Amino acid sequence: MKQLDYFFNPKSVAIVGASHKPDKIGYAILANFLGAGFERKIYPVNPETVPILGLNVYKSVLDVSDDLDLVVIVVPAAFVPDVLKECVKKKIEAIVIISAGFSEVGDEGKKLEVKCKRIVEGAYTRIIGPNCIGIYDPYTRVDTLFLSRERCGRPKEGNIAFISQSGAVGSTILDWMSEENIGISKFVSYGNAMDIDDCDLIEYLAADDKTQVITVYLEGIEASGQKFMKIIKNVTKKKPVIILKSGKTEKGLKAVFSHTGSLGGSQKIYSAAFKQTGVIEANSWEELFDFARGFSTQPLPKGNRIAIITDGGGFGVLATDESDRQGLQLPEPSEKIKKEISKVMPTYAVMHNPIDLTGDANANRYKVVIESCLKSDEFDGLIAITLFQVPTLQKEVVDYIVELHKKYKKPLLACAAGGKFTEELSRKLNAGGVPVYPTPERAVKTMAALVKYREWLNK
Amino acid sequence: MKQLDYFFNPKSVAIVGASHKPDKIGYAILANFLGAGFERKIYPVNPETVPILGLNVYKSVLDVSDDLDLVVIVVPAAFVPDVLKECVKKKIEAIVIISAGFSEVGDEGKKLEVKCKRIVEGAYTRIIGPNCIGIYDPYTRVDTLFLSRERCGRPKEGNIAFISQSGAVGSTILDWMSEENIGISKFVSYGNAMDIDDCDLIEYLAADDKTQVITVYLEGIEASGQKFMKIIKNVTKKKPVIILKSGKTEKGLKAVFSHTGSLGGSQKIYSAAFKQTGVIEANSWEELFDFARGFSTQPLPKGNRIAIITDGGGFGVLATDESDRQGLQLPEPSEKIKKEISKVMPTYAVMHNPIDLTGDANANRYKVVIESCLKSDEFDGLIAITLFQVPTLQKEVVDYIVELHKKYKKPLLACAAGGKFTEELSRKLNAGGVPVYPTPERAVKTMAALVKYREWLNK
Repeated sequence: MKQLDYFFNPKSVAIVGASHKPDKIGYAILANFLGAGFERKIYPVNPETVPILGLNVYKSVLDVSDDLDLVVIVVPAAFVPDVLKECVKKKIEAIVIISAGFSEVGDEGKKLEVKCKRIVEGAYTRIIGPNCIGIYDPYTRVDTLFLSRERCGRPKEGNIAFISQSGAVGSTILDWMSEENIGISKFVSYGNAMDIDDCDLIEYLAADDKTQVITVYLEGIEASGQKFMKIIKNVTKKKPVIILKSGKTEKGLKAVFSHTGSLGGSQKIYSAAFKQTGVIEANSWEELFDFARGFSTQPLPKGNRIAIITDGGGFGVLATDESDRQGLQLPEPSEKIKKEISKVMPTYAVMHNPIDLTGDANANRYKVVIESCLKSDEFDGLIAITLFQVPTLQKEVVDYIVELHKKYKKPLLACAAGGKFTEELSRKLNAGGVPVYPTPERAVKTMAALVKYREWLNK
Repeated sequence: MKQLDYFFNPKSVAIVGASHKPDKIGYAILANFLGAGFERKIYPVNPETVPILGLNVYKSVLDVSDDLDLVVIVVPAAFVPDVLKECVKKKIEAIVIISAGFSEVGDEGKKLEVKCKRIVEGAYTRIIGPNCIGIYDPYTRVDTLFLSRERCGRPKEGNIAFISQSGAVGSTILDWMSEENIGISKFVSYGNAMDIDDCDLIEYLAADDKTQVITVYLEGIEASGQKFMKIIKNVTKKKPVIILKSGKTEKGLKAVFSHTGSLGGSQKIYSAAFKQTGVIEANSWEELFDFARGFSTQPLPKGNRIAIITDGGGFGVLATDESDRQGLQLPEPSEKIKKEISKVMPTYAVMHNPIDLTGDANANRYKVVIESCLKSDEFDGLIAITLFQVPTLQKEVVDYIVELHKKYKKPLLACAAGGKFTEELSRKLNAGGVPVYPTPERAVKTMAALVKYREWLNK
């Protein structure tokens, strides 16, 4: 068992600072832990030993006779050093410090953080935080978030790991993922990274069976540049790592500095480092998860030759523009394919690439054309633009696309936008393993990310 | 009354090609027209004079004894010239040709289009189309769309006009706007623009009382460059014109050419033309409506000094990055403001710009800080990032923001993302005239569009 496993799969947890008052985060964390369905032992710790939510309360971790795998600390910053001393004494392996008021608030906080660091130095204790919201693991139900489930949904089980320096960005995106029905393997908000940093987590996730894609929001790299380069290069040979790096501009950097106390490097350096280590860079959090959904569901394309199929010429044009910007090739279909699909195409339809099925497309036309492209060696991937507003397009098109995707094992992304009818069919495509993007640009950028990662692996 | 009024506010309409068969678009258009609640006279025209949907059917427009303000043509392309001759004979002022099979399909179609053009030459008849889905006007209930309301929602009454060369892009976005509860003044899909072109429509909308913002999707400019430059320059001095121009890249241009038969110019020429004429250029259809929602609801800022307020540092950093890219200034708040807001701010909070209210922000903190910034002369606009996941943030924050926005009449945009709880509060903000954007980047880009338009007006 790796040491970081104690964070995600503890047999017992103490919450130091568990509160009796429902408006305190020390209460919320305990309540959420219980509400998450965590079925192992939980020990609230508080100077007042009146039971909370039916659980016995302990004065100190030292009063808990059981072994403790994980300790979550939510006491005010000034009290954290004393709690840490007790944890070291009890030989705790894993600690999450939620409390804020450390290096992010200036010199005083910095001193306090250094003090805490010294306490655990030499001990076997590892720390996530401080100034973070900690961990959510949908498989083991570890949930140190102090945000209620009403306000902040928790995503279902899945294969996307997400680590975030910022707790607010992290929780906002968790909530959004839950709403979008995107599953995750593990979530970590690591805040000031006093001990465990971004690189440690990425390295751990690289070896995690449940994780297929690693997504990261960071403001500055907490590990040294050397460590980052060495570790990430190895990880990206195994799994895709997608990073959204903020604080890209000079002013952005200043804002980072006041936020988590990490001094980000200039964007050029980061972009170069990402490129050299095979990291897929996202330019917004929408891109971060657009890409993640692609990697989470699709096989990698063998090359960059993409077929675009559409029932709306305009969306085809927008997709073409973006393909060109992204360096994807849209080869003209061969005479063989043209002959094959001509049986279902109207005489006036355009058989270039994008292949325009026109506004009277039906489900069978999609089926024949998609199958023809997927089974040929001419294309490495396919983008199906399915504007469901078209009156002739039967709902079955969704089943056809899902089946063909399973049969031919090539990357296939869909694009659709609209209202309730579109949402209903998009949900089916998503559930069937074909992610749907609301704009052609976003589908194309995701396909390009798959292509670029394949190129990295081929290097 | 201007002639184009006949298209949007006809007292009587004939639908030539109205069909008895429910799966034909000639049936759908008639049914949708009736379903839209259009309360004026409708005359179906079909060689078979059996009633359709309870309406008497006429063999020809010439058989209708009433005056006809608008004729919608949906017969196959080859029959269109004969119908046009009858229309000219009856001195029809406004015709929408939905039928496809003209210049967009090649030489034969081009000849047919020229033939049609000759028929109306010299007559007082004006034409929208062919190869389009025509008009939707929520005020007068003109609805020539052949897309069912189940598949393609119709937006409510509003002040955003939207014209689209492409019918598929147009209908997809209409459906999406309806779902997002964004109101429109008029929608026109003009297809091949055989007679009435983009410029004619933009000029008409500039004088339309119901329209406050003009949004345009185009693949190539149908009017001559000279006409475009002359007309648009005048329009943009009155109303903002936002254009999404596709076919930007070389391959995109090729796709345009096979789509609507218009040969777009190179992107550089377009961008230069847009800049010279004060057009706000959108880079995706999300931007088109992000910007439109800003212009539709906000006063223009006096300058580019923006305050950003956030309860999540990370989102503040992302907003700062984008502000820097967009050339917005984020001045440090004065000592006066800092003193004023210090009463509600925690000691560790960051009082730069973005002003980080931190993760324990409450509604009152937002109220005090927003009011302090709005009433001062230091800022021309404000972006409020409200991550509703924060447990301490009461729902009332939404009412405070709406009230302050009304009181101080400065542009105020919000940013929030998440699940159901966030959606509920975002709907309230939107309804109260404060548009909510799902990412900081999109809010900032919209603010920048408002600033740039103000700069254009000041020129």
